[in-house]
Amino acid sequence: MPRVLYDLCGIDENLRFSPYCWRVKYALAHKGLDYETRPWHFTDKPAIGFSEQGKVPVLVDGEQTVTDSYEIFRYLDRTYPDKPLLGSGEAEARARFLKFYAERSLAPGMMKTIVMDLYNALDPRDREYFRETREKAFGRALEEVHAPSRGLSQLDQALEPLRGRLGEADFVDGEAPAAADYLLFGSFMWARCVSTADLVSNADPVYAWMERMLDVHGGLGRNAMRIVDIEGAYAN
Amino acid sequence: MPRVLYDLCGIDENLRFSPYCWRVKYALAHKGLDYETRPWHFTDKPAIGFSEQGKVPVLVDGEQTVTDSYEIFRYLDRTYPDKPLLGSGEAEARARFLKFYAERSLAPGMMKTIVMDLYNALDPRDREYFRETREKAFGRALEEVHAPSRGLSQLDQALEPLRGRLGEADFVDGEAPAAADYLLFGSFMWARCVSTADLVSNADPVYAWMERMLDVHGGLGRNAMRIVDIEGAYAN
Repeated sequence: MPRVLYDLCGIDENLRFSPYCWRVKYALAHKGLDYETRPWHFTDKPAIGFSEQGKVPVLVDGEQTVTDSYEIFRYLDRTYPDKPLLGSGEAEARARFLKFYAERSLAPGMMKTIVMDLYNALDPRDREYFRETREKAFGRALEEVHAPSRGLSQLDQALEPLRGRLGEADFVDGEAPAAADYLLFGSFMWARCVSTADLVSNADPVYAWMERMLDVHGGLGRNAMRIVDIEGAYAN
Repeated sequence: MPRVLYDLCGIDENLRFSPYCWRVKYALAHKGLDYETRPWHFTDKPAIGFSEQGKVPVLVDGEQTVTDSYEIFRYLDRTYPDKPLLGSGEAEARARFLKFYAERSLAPGMMKTIVMDLYNALDPRDREYFRETREKAFGRALEEVHAPSRGLSQLDQALEPLRGRLGEADFVDGEAPAAADYLLFGSFMWARCVSTADLVSNADPVYAWMERMLDVHGGLGRNAMRIVDIEGAYAN
């Protein structure tokens, strides 16, 4: 039985933008593991009911079902110890910090910038679900969350430590990417797939890293479908 | 010959507030190494001329002279491999990110909040030097850098990933502190020694971590002199 990853899709089945699913696709590529993806919609809870929760990524690997991107990283390191993603001890502790940096420092500024693009990239059947759950979480309407210039300025400030690190190394994790790079880059793939917003100037060390990350593992990120590849789908 | 650390001092010889020197004092304590400190002033360049540069920390360990807090961490791990600070491979790469997070995310908000307290804590003979070099670096007068409410709000936002990590673990590096904790906590000691500003609310996981960090290694941080311990020195 092939390894299967349930992967969020949008208005086109091949438009895959979940930052958490992108983390896992990079992690699987890092380990050199084959897999198939199953396109999944926010509202298609029954399809992943076997995982006893309602979110992707869900990885089915033989008899094992694993959910949550970070838990999947841990599972992969445990099961396929070659080419560690997280590592152990202090390496793993510091990867946890990077995970929170992605989710709490980078994602909020990106969200303010791309939220309406994201909404438009959703399959129409998911839009009501997305609006309801996110408006509840944010405490306001999506249209009020949408504030690209504030979002970009927040992101610019949040990028400072990443900029510092990437000014001295090709990847956060050194000469080659590993968990820290994938944990962060998932958020950049999320924005890239649904939006044309220029989040980072091309003179920024973060931009050069993004280009390298798009190219690694056979162009995994670069080859991904973007909303602009779908005729008539990109509303501005 | 005893191990010697040249350590920045302020209006009192025992007021030691350099965030970079605090990193090193925690690192030496982590390794269980004895040392003496030599109080040093910004303008006392000749005293560290033997190090061929003009900043502290300067660690003199037998025949070795090492400068720059991060390089001192590396030196200590190389020379005294027991109880690693940085570790190697991904652990070390991620520690670099934490170093930049301290300097580029945390320090700027703190600086806006405490800069005039810092100025007042300096030995009078260092004030002109400090003002000139910092105003050149900031591109404006210290009094214009001083903006506590903006500084606190910037710091509050920058603390988000640290808050996330410390909501699940006692220390950034896990069950016990190591390099990541020391790299960050140096900045908190800097603020604590010169200012009474409440940087973090006592309901914050970061606050509980600060309390733990003050207590580790025999209360190294807790026992340090603060500006408020010097009669008449704290101007508000």
